Amino acid sequence: MEFSEWYSDILEKAGIYDLRYPIKGCGVYLPYGFKIRRYSFEILRKLLDETNHDETLFPMLIPENLLAKEGEHIKGFEDEVFWVTHGGKTPLEVKLALRPTSETTMYYMMKQWIKVHTDLPMKLYQVVNTFRYETKHTRPLIRLREIMSFKEAHTAHATKEDCDAQITEALNLYGEFFDEICVPYIISKRPEWDKFPGADYTMAFDTIYPDGKTMQIGTVHNLGQNFAKTFELEFETPDGEKDFVYQTCYGISDRAIASLISVHGDEKGLVIPVDVAPIQIVLIPLLFKGKEEIVMDKIKELNRTLKSEFRVLLDDRDIRPGRKYNDWEIKGVPLRIELGPRDIENGQALIVRRDTGEKITVEYSNILEEVEKIVSMYKENLKIKADEKIKNFLTVVDFESDVNALSEKVKAALLENKGIILIPFDESVYNEEFEELIDASVLGQTTYEGKDYISVARTY
Amino acid sequence: MEFSEWYSDILEKAGIYDLRYPIKGCGVYLPYGFKIRRYSFEILRKLLDETNHDETLFPMLIPENLLAKEGEHIKGFEDEVFWVTHGGKTPLEVKLALRPTSETTMYYMMKQWIKVHTDLPMKLYQVVNTFRYETKHTRPLIRLREIMSFKEAHTAHATKEDCDAQITEALNLYGEFFDEICVPYIISKRPEWDKFPGADYTMAFDTIYPDGKTMQIGTVHNLGQNFAKTFELEFETPDGEKDFVYQTCYGISDRAIASLISVHGDEKGLVIPVDVAPIQIVLIPLLFKGKEEIVMDKIKELNRTLKSEFRVLLDDRDIRPGRKYNDWEIKGVPLRIELGPRDIENGQALIVRRDTGEKITVEYSNILEEVEKIVSMYKENLKIKADEKIKNFLTVVDFESDVNALSEKVKAALLENKGIILIPFDESVYNEEFEELIDASVLGQTTYEGKDYISVARTY
Repeated sequence: MEFSEWYSDILEKAGIYDLRYPIKGCGVYLPYGFKIRRYSFEILRKLLDETNHDETLFPMLIPENLLAKEGEHIKGFEDEVFWVTHGGKTPLEVKLALRPTSETTMYYMMKQWIKVHTDLPMKLYQVVNTFRYETKHTRPLIRLREIMSFKEAHTAHATKEDCDAQITEALNLYGEFFDEICVPYIISKRPEWDKFPGADYTMAFDTIYPDGKTMQIGTVHNLGQNFAKTFELEFETPDGEKDFVYQTCYGISDRAIASLISVHGDEKGLVIPVDVAPIQIVLIPLLFKGKEEIVMDKIKELNRTLKSEFRVLLDDRDIRPGRKYNDWEIKGVPLRIELGPRDIENGQALIVRRDTGEKITVEYSNILEEVEKIVSMYKENLKIKADEKIKNFLTVVDFESDVNALSEKVKAALLENKGIILIPFDESVYNEEFEELIDASVLGQTTYEGKDYISVARTY
Repeated sequence: MEFSEWYSDILEKAGIYDLRYPIKGCGVYLPYGFKIRRYSFEILRKLLDETNHDETLFPMLIPENLLAKEGEHIKGFEDEVFWVTHGGKTPLEVKLALRPTSETTMYYMMKQWIKVHTDLPMKLYQVVNTFRYETKHTRPLIRLREIMSFKEAHTAHATKEDCDAQITEALNLYGEFFDEICVPYIISKRPEWDKFPGADYTMAFDTIYPDGKTMQIGTVHNLGQNFAKTFELEFETPDGEKDFVYQTCYGISDRAIASLISVHGDEKGLVIPVDVAPIQIVLIPLLFKGKEEIVMDKIKELNRTLKSEFRVLLDDRDIRPGRKYNDWEIKGVPLRIELGPRDIENGQALIVRRDTGEKITVEYSNILEEVEKIVSMYKENLKIKADEKIKNFLTVVDFESDVNALSEKVKAALLENKGIILIPFDESVYNEEFEELIDASVLGQTTYEGKDYISVARTY
């Protein structure tokens, strides 16, 4: 099955996201999908809170004149902004944009709050819906008109050094987040012609989908003093001088969820990382006539035992075990534990891993410990697999000084290996002309195993 | 100070909400305010999850034809809906409403999901922003154009009995929520002329603000089969017949936060219920020359001890203790613990309660237990106070068969006692004419201490 077909299919079958809403690019996070989102964003929140980011909530509507304040910024967004023009039947005096992102909103307010160096650093974030009037083909959780979950962080600093250090912190933090949700990534410095509108430069996280195309899953922007000058974010330095703040911003969206689904799923369905799995362990009683009570009593006991540490579901529906296996494999539940009369007699239980399909018989008396062990192997394995998956999609080509020869080589490599092609970094081909020549996207400047490359790929 | 002045003032001073945004009725949840919101809505989420409600996320935009589908419903909202008419520079074919509430969105989708009685009950909720083009005076967290936090639950049931039982569950659940955040309430069945547009009937929670005006803080609607018929929510019953589902919906907004602030605050600032306090205990070292290290070592140890159970902040700023007391009193931190060299010598610490101002000297060796005890007294006291506050604002008047005499009596009682006036229930005056006569609002039919009343009040 083609990846994109698999993807649409699994969103529906596993109860992640329903796109049958009468507006293109707008859909519904279903209960199971929402839980994955909730656990994922809780991890992100925790990482942000631990590094002294403050969660806030800013308005969704932006007056036209505020959005237009930063010239580069508005140019980057004006064609894809939804506009509110009426309240009831009354035309509004100033039309209002649905936020495509919140720089202008947040920096307008920062102006009220930042007066002196002791107000800095200011590190704010919010998790909100944002909007883009996408004219391209939309794709659930990947290219939406309503991005349902956008975690955007915005920081302001007193010095360039602090600002640069913040970029490093953000990159580490995002790296840790993607590690925890088992999404592999490559970090690139985006080329000038593809940076965030209004930024000095943009660092981006890309992952690679099973079809070999890359997906941008996180961006970190160094805004320098650009927005600060436009929004007059001046403060008094320790010396009593005036200076503009230095700013960064960085965001992660629903694509994080799309990616953890896409990278690990297989032909049977989802394979969900333990920490974000709505159900981590499903218990399936194997009932035989006359032994129902013994099995149910034992499995309820097991349910209680495991619930102290895990999110467990006891599936006692009156259907055949085979159907249950199938249902939970589609939903990607990490572990399944089967318990029948024979197992009870032998003081055992059977644990089946979703990631490898491996069946492991364990001593019942020791089951919590056994489960912990298998869970930690599952986690480890998903991380290793994530790493392997991206490595298999990385191809280093030798540099050719002849630009046409190089482009042919890159095109051939893209055709054969897909994924990301790494070209030893050279200024001479780091431009839009070369990008056009290879008929693929330049992700940017990428450090890989200590060396500098130009990374190119076909992207989503 | 007048209540409304106190309220605006405290939102700013305590860092709750900033309304200096260039759109009327839109503002910013500041970090401290956001934390109160986060803890409060976490309590609500927990209560909903425990009663098998599934969290979801639905689109924010509603096509005009979908919003207009239910006649009564759209009539109730059409004058206060924001309309999106353009994407970029392109006029949209169908204009899109910013959701004022999500009945139409959710029931359109329920139609895709509900086929047979085993699909029921369906109990969904979401926490989202909603929008009203308020032409009246807006008020932070109370009457907003962007309601930043709206928890809306929507349920569908196979029978009228299940639906009625759901109303009871919702009322209990909301009651428990308001108890936990220490907001006192009176439940009324709203009169016909003030029910939710499209509902069979509406139950509402009102609290009373310090100025004696009531605030609607939660509503529970029995929708019967009204929306189900419009949205064709038909299902197959166990007998193989067709029937329409029975529905309820219920909501709680930012007003919950506004209310916990308003009900308990005093002239010094906020008094926050322990469970939703961003900082539950603040530690203040009393430093004397030469003893700084002893005190700081001890208070850091105390910080570690208390952090195992509470959200604690050690305030080691280099300013005078008096200023610190003041700052944390404004922010309503439940307990303050002071520790100086003398206390350490005596093996003691001083605990100051924000709710009563009481100063309690405790044995340091036993401090975790002492703090637990005081915290639980604080909780208890806030609940008792909440109860007292609403009771002091309830006035029962005798019934008069002469409607003018009755209305004069009610008006006099309102003038003198403010709050809610309870009139023994009588059909003859339960109408809009009487409401006009008394120049106040009929909250509805209220059961109080086992008796039936018509409750009236001046409302926000």
